[in-house]
Amino acid sequence: MHDTSEAARATRARAWFDELRDRLVAAFEALEDAAPPDLYPGEPGRFELKPWVRAEGGGGVMGFLRGRLFEKCGLHVSRVEGVFSPEMAANMPGVGEDRRFVATGVSLITHMVNPRVPAVHMNTRYIATTRGWFGGGADLTPLLEEHRSERAPDAVRFHAALQHACDAHHADWYARYKAECDRYFFLPHRNEPRGIGGIFYDHHDSGDFERDFAFTRDVGLALLDVYPAIAARRMLEPWTEEEREEQLIRRGRYVEFNLLYDRGTMFGLKTGGNIESILSSMPPTVKWP
Amino acid sequence: MHDTSEAARATRARAWFDELRDRLVAAFEALEDAAPPDLYPGEPGRFELKPWVRAEGGGGVMGFLRGRLFEKCGLHVSRVEGVFSPEMAANMPGVGEDRRFVATGVSLITHMVNPRVPAVHMNTRYIATTRGWFGGGADLTPLLEEHRSERAPDAVRFHAALQHACDAHHADWYARYKAECDRYFFLPHRNEPRGIGGIFYDHHDSGDFERDFAFTRDVGLALLDVYPAIAARRMLEPWTEEEREEQLIRRGRYVEFNLLYDRGTMFGLKTGGNIESILSSMPPTVKWP
Repeated sequence: MHDTSEAARATRARAWFDELRDRLVAAFEALEDAAPPDLYPGEPGRFELKPWVRAEGGGGVMGFLRGRLFEKCGLHVSRVEGVFSPEMAANMPGVGEDRRFVATGVSLITHMVNPRVPAVHMNTRYIATTRGWFGGGADLTPLLEEHRSERAPDAVRFHAALQHACDAHHADWYARYKAECDRYFFLPHRNEPRGIGGIFYDHHDSGDFERDFAFTRDVGLALLDVYPAIAARRMLEPWTEEEREEQLIRRGRYVEFNLLYDRGTMFGLKTGGNIESILSSMPPTVKWP
Repeated sequence: MHDTSEAARATRARAWFDELRDRLVAAFEALEDAAPPDLYPGEPGRFELKPWVRAEGGGGVMGFLRGRLFEKCGLHVSRVEGVFSPEMAANMPGVGEDRRFVATGVSLITHMVNPRVPAVHMNTRYIATTRGWFGGGADLTPLLEEHRSERAPDAVRFHAALQHACDAHHADWYARYKAECDRYFFLPHRNEPRGIGGIFYDHHDSGDFERDFAFTRDVGLALLDVYPAIAARRMLEPWTEEEREEQLIRRGRYVEFNLLYDRGTMFGLKTGGNIESILSSMPPTVKWP
């Protein structure tokens, strides 16, 4: 970071990520309160926030919700600064002699008690070297076969929300970033998609920071709007033991994807990242029968 | 295989692997029968054997035991023939113009209901190109912290059995192959070993096929002797809910190792191997709380 304007941009992005986190916390805790007690016994869960500091510079706040509706939810915000290794630098725009960077982001993963409520993943981030760009996206993972079609109601609603967020900023972005999501969240060894998709983007830099920042905010707001709405409807549906079993087995695919293919997970684990944060995306209970 | 003697050696090795499988089946089913019903309700489990054929040549028999003591056990024998890809060939001895190979092996993994009974993994194989060699090993994974020391009784007994098998053939092999095992079955991202070790060897070719074959048979016999003995003793011990929880969490490390680091698993999954066989090593129930 020699350009102080990039540091100022990262500070603005971090402030937004914190705000989005606070609003997601409020929305999810409201769902914990509203979940019908006959289906979800026990007390409504509350987020625990754990600050952490990175020795090399920066840190963040990990958030965990283990409740009666949210079986396990990770919601983390961070801002870290440092110097890319030569290997990392090779894949990063704007890195030459000067390998310094700043990265800030918010990440969310939900694993629900009720197999009829889909899991969701969302991550948005701002990274700056001598240049700055946004990355991230959101994707939905219904657990039951009957929900795992792009024509299923939750999928239609989820895609529409993300399309709305994209279309407000550029006519091409939705199609492009939806295709990237389908390409990325795919398990070649099983020849099956992880979920029903969403959007995924990286190195997003239209040349207009304000526009790109507004786009990333709208992706977060779309998730904040659509996922609690889907969960609020689905959480009212009772489930069977067979559906719970199907969910636990399907979660195994999630584990396989994260450990075999997810670039962020593998990179983080192999380079000494924060294990607790990186592996907080792992489902709480999984079966490979 | 232009050398028919290699094919004949593979046939002899396969016959031994089948015999070892049959003896392990008998030993494990006897444990299923002997497990005390107050700790292990239900009927004793029996192996199901599923033959499979590989389109490119060869095949094998997958064995699965899902019982009251053995929560999930995979025990597979195979013999496959083919032609190494140029990438594979680069890491294989004896491959030049002629990239044909034959490979035969037996593999075993146990995941037990009782968290006080360790899991075990064993694999021995014979691979031949224009040269032939043995590979494999056996390692023990106690699930509870109190058993996860090299000085714990099960560990001492397990290591002694393997040392005995090695020492009968060469004074150096035990130390060398024990060190290779410790190096291989290690999770760098957690800075912890997968289990308490055992032995691990590859490209084992002393120049004397009969000696190497006898060594590999003795590794199998050591496992056949020591593991049922350990399990027979440990299965009598009642366990607590806390120990079961510790076991399910510890199994997550097993999943992490297999998907992040195990060469065989990653290679198999990414090159279109038999998913059912490759992933049969995954624990039946796992937690990342």
